[in-house]
Amino acid sequence: MGKIDGSKYIVASITLNLILIINLCVSGKWKLSWSSQAAIEAETVAAISCSGHGRAFLDGLVLDGKQPICECNSCYQGSDCSNFIPGCAANVDGYVPFLLVQHAASSAVVVAGWHRMSYKFNDHTFISQELERLIRKVHDIVGNAVTDNRFIVFGAGSTQILSAAVYALSADNASSPARVLTSNPYYPLYKMQTELFASVNFEYQGDTSLWKNSSDAGTNMIEFVTSPNNPDGQLNKAVLHGPYAKAIYDRAYYWPHFTPIPAPADEDVMMFTLSKLTGHAGSRFGWAVIKDEAVFQRMTKHIGVTSIGVSRDGQLRALKLLKVVLEREGKEIFEFGYETMKTRWEKLVKALSLSKRFSLQDIEPQFCTFFQKLRQLSPAYAWLKCEREEEKDCYAVHKAANIIGHEGSVFGAEDRYIRLSMIGTQDEYDLLIDRLNKLVSEEVGAKTMRRMQPSCSLLKISKKNFTTCNIEILRQYYLPSYISISIS
Amino acid sequence: MGKIDGSKYIVASITLNLILIINLCVSGKWKLSWSSQAAIEAETVAAISCSGHGRAFLDGLVLDGKQPICECNSCYQGSDCSNFIPGCAANVDGYVPFLLVQHAASSAVVVAGWHRMSYKFNDHTFISQELERLIRKVHDIVGNAVTDNRFIVFGAGSTQILSAAVYALSADNASSPARVLTSNPYYPLYKMQTELFASVNFEYQGDTSLWKNSSDAGTNMIEFVTSPNNPDGQLNKAVLHGPYAKAIYDRAYYWPHFTPIPAPADEDVMMFTLSKLTGHAGSRFGWAVIKDEAVFQRMTKHIGVTSIGVSRDGQLRALKLLKVVLEREGKEIFEFGYETMKTRWEKLVKALSLSKRFSLQDIEPQFCTFFQKLRQLSPAYAWLKCEREEEKDCYAVHKAANIIGHEGSVFGAEDRYIRLSMIGTQDEYDLLIDRLNKLVSEEVGAKTMRRMQPSCSLLKISKKNFTTCNIEILRQYYLPSYISISIS
Repeated sequence: MGKIDGSKYIVASITLNLILIINLCVSGKWKLSWSSQAAIEAETVAAISCSGHGRAFLDGLVLDGKQPICECNSCYQGSDCSNFIPGCAANVDGYVPFLLVQHAASSAVVVAGWHRMSYKFNDHTFISQELERLIRKVHDIVGNAVTDNRFIVFGAGSTQILSAAVYALSADNASSPARVLTSNPYYPLYKMQTELFASVNFEYQGDTSLWKNSSDAGTNMIEFVTSPNNPDGQLNKAVLHGPYAKAIYDRAYYWPHFTPIPAPADEDVMMFTLSKLTGHAGSRFGWAVIKDEAVFQRMTKHIGVTSIGVSRDGQLRALKLLKVVLEREGKEIFEFGYETMKTRWEKLVKALSLSKRFSLQDIEPQFCTFFQKLRQLSPAYAWLKCEREEEKDCYAVHKAANIIGHEGSVFGAEDRYIRLSMIGTQDEYDLLIDRLNKLVSEEVGAKTMRRMQPSCSLLKISKKNFTTCNIEILRQYYLPSYISISIS
Repeated sequence: MGKIDGSKYIVASITLNLILIINLCVSGKWKLSWSSQAAIEAETVAAISCSGHGRAFLDGLVLDGKQPICECNSCYQGSDCSNFIPGCAANVDGYVPFLLVQHAASSAVVVAGWHRMSYKFNDHTFISQELERLIRKVHDIVGNAVTDNRFIVFGAGSTQILSAAVYALSADNASSPARVLTSNPYYPLYKMQTELFASVNFEYQGDTSLWKNSSDAGTNMIEFVTSPNNPDGQLNKAVLHGPYAKAIYDRAYYWPHFTPIPAPADEDVMMFTLSKLTGHAGSRFGWAVIKDEAVFQRMTKHIGVTSIGVSRDGQLRALKLLKVVLEREGKEIFEFGYETMKTRWEKLVKALSLSKRFSLQDIEPQFCTFFQKLRQLSPAYAWLKCEREEEKDCYAVHKAANIIGHEGSVFGAEDRYIRLSMIGTQDEYDLLIDRLNKLVSEEVGAKTMRRMQPSCSLLKISKKNFTTCNIEILRQYYLPSYISISIS
């Protein structure tokens, strides 16, 4: 009886070992050597719980000498970001991570200590050829820009690119400085940057309309065309034409999650940025697609002399992220992005639907060659107008309601306009909608709100799920505003 | 006989499983989830063999669709960089990895897909507070700069920092543009950048000596002081003084591996860069230490408007690298760096010792407060002079000998000077010394070379080890030059 059939155990033991080993070999973890310390470090920080209202970062402040602290979304506080700050202003300045969380594995990157230490790549440029190849591929599958026989230059976001472009399109020692022009409403950085440089070769001279009929005056005119436009999302086209008119097309938002793509853009100078493609503003990576070699050379010179190219670490990050974008030919990220933005826009429109006090920009729906269908609106920003004659300061009106927008005057428009971001974190967006609902309910009255035709959706409040109709009303009257609600 | 004692197997099996599990748990690899794919990817690329004359990178070109190709050091070629290119010019433009290879684990960093996506850190700046804290700590242990009650600003290398500093020190709408001045020989980027910006507020106006006696002329003068100087390694001091004289101290090379540290630098505006601290030029990360808050604010504005701060990925990389620097209070990296640079300088001096045709700069040895001793020379560059009256073009003289240097005129000096880099890769440096030996042997004759007092060292040629005396002579006369030699 002391004897037992060992063969079973041999089999059992071998099987168990095999399972373990196979499991490890398949997951590949058995291979790791020098990278495992960094990997464990990163996963440990990623595992720090910040209640879904914040995040701990690898380079976050280390106060207790142990691990980085939680960095909370605006309006949340506490060591784990679980405390909502009542009466806190909804200030939308975060970003939607258009790369889904389930891409954690494929979007992560391990940087070796010896990675790209040199100033130059092997081809003596400051540019990763592999990244350039992927950029062309992304434009190709999205169909938003012609890149064949075009030059590509990298910059620290589109921010550095635009100054390089203005430099490249203006002549050295010209008889008179080139006129840098914009069309209201316009992205304010064009003006700020041009004025900061205070160059003898170019000068900010305001709105294109002033120069429409003088485009052959012999002085170069550099027109910024933002398409889709920031703030109002319109697919703008150049206003100025003729031998002295040159356009810089800012195509930052020309992606299927923000706008229909009627056709591939094919302008002489086009700018794009990772921040509006994947949401990675912090990497400071942008690029320009350029037709003319001389312009390309001057832009490359500018970026070389001002920063010796773009951080190779940022380039590696961009490479990794573009690989994720290219999975399933971009279908996944752009569908997710489009659905997210469309839903946000619909909720905004609904929140303002009963209001006569506020109105939103009107954007013409168009056929999108990427989705092969007529697209609904999903702009990155709401360009909101205060309609009441006496309410000339729309920023103040919203500030009083604890909503922080951007004044219209910043964009060269009237202050009866404000820009509200649709690309903030979910917390920021939810709070914005919450506050807008309050504002509108004050205008139209609670009764009217209650009479509203309900729209049904599934609500999740903490772990408790239940179905209800019209979450705005629910949030307005039956829920304390500090409970965050997410729709699924 | 079919029956055996199973208990042994149970024990054996359990033990084996335990060993496996413990092994995994201790190495921590069992923890990894989302980061393992990236880690395996990185280690696979790192494992690609490039014969020690090149490296494969994670973002390298992928030609066969499988793995990135080897990127070879200059003068090497072939799929694994094993082929030396005979007669190839020694062009020193690589960098010494001052972080030892055995720091592979601690210098690696894993970047999660969601890392620092936003434009701003939680304190609404573009700067990692944790990184700023480490920078102050590094200066503190090295004793090369006063950072208490000083402001710190980040830039894309010192390259972006210097243009921000010139902007900050020049006034907007001044009656006359500030004079940007340098002292020969000077780092050429100061002039190139100032001229590229063609600003109405500042202008490059040449050598400080021209303005020495007009420093109270009422026009601001911005003097670049590079200390240690690039190209000649001298610990320069400002030439101009008085109410209108402002200095930007470029302290890029003020680290114990390049120069003695007589005392902590304490100038109003000081610039540093990661590229000359750890050798990571590609990360494009630099910083300035600033006394005056108004200057700090203007520099911050400049970097904000021109690039919205520095890549957060580059900042994370810098953070990781500074942590390695801080190990053992910096002793390890600086001792390694100093020994490497000192040895290189000694070999250079030896190679030129018999020459009357070429001379090197003379730098006064000084007491180093970091090493607590009088230091030997270990400059980043050799500032070589062609002494023969007729040899006015020192660049051409070396070019003919297959050595590519930087012409003296580039630095505002005579072309009878050239700059040779001492901070290239070992391959580049070895080739440089090899070619200089040839050049000198032509001058003094083989006989003299043979009579030279030999210095003994261990040679490694491929796998065969043997001892010899005076490797230069050996390399010169008994070895084909395409065999690469490394000294240990």
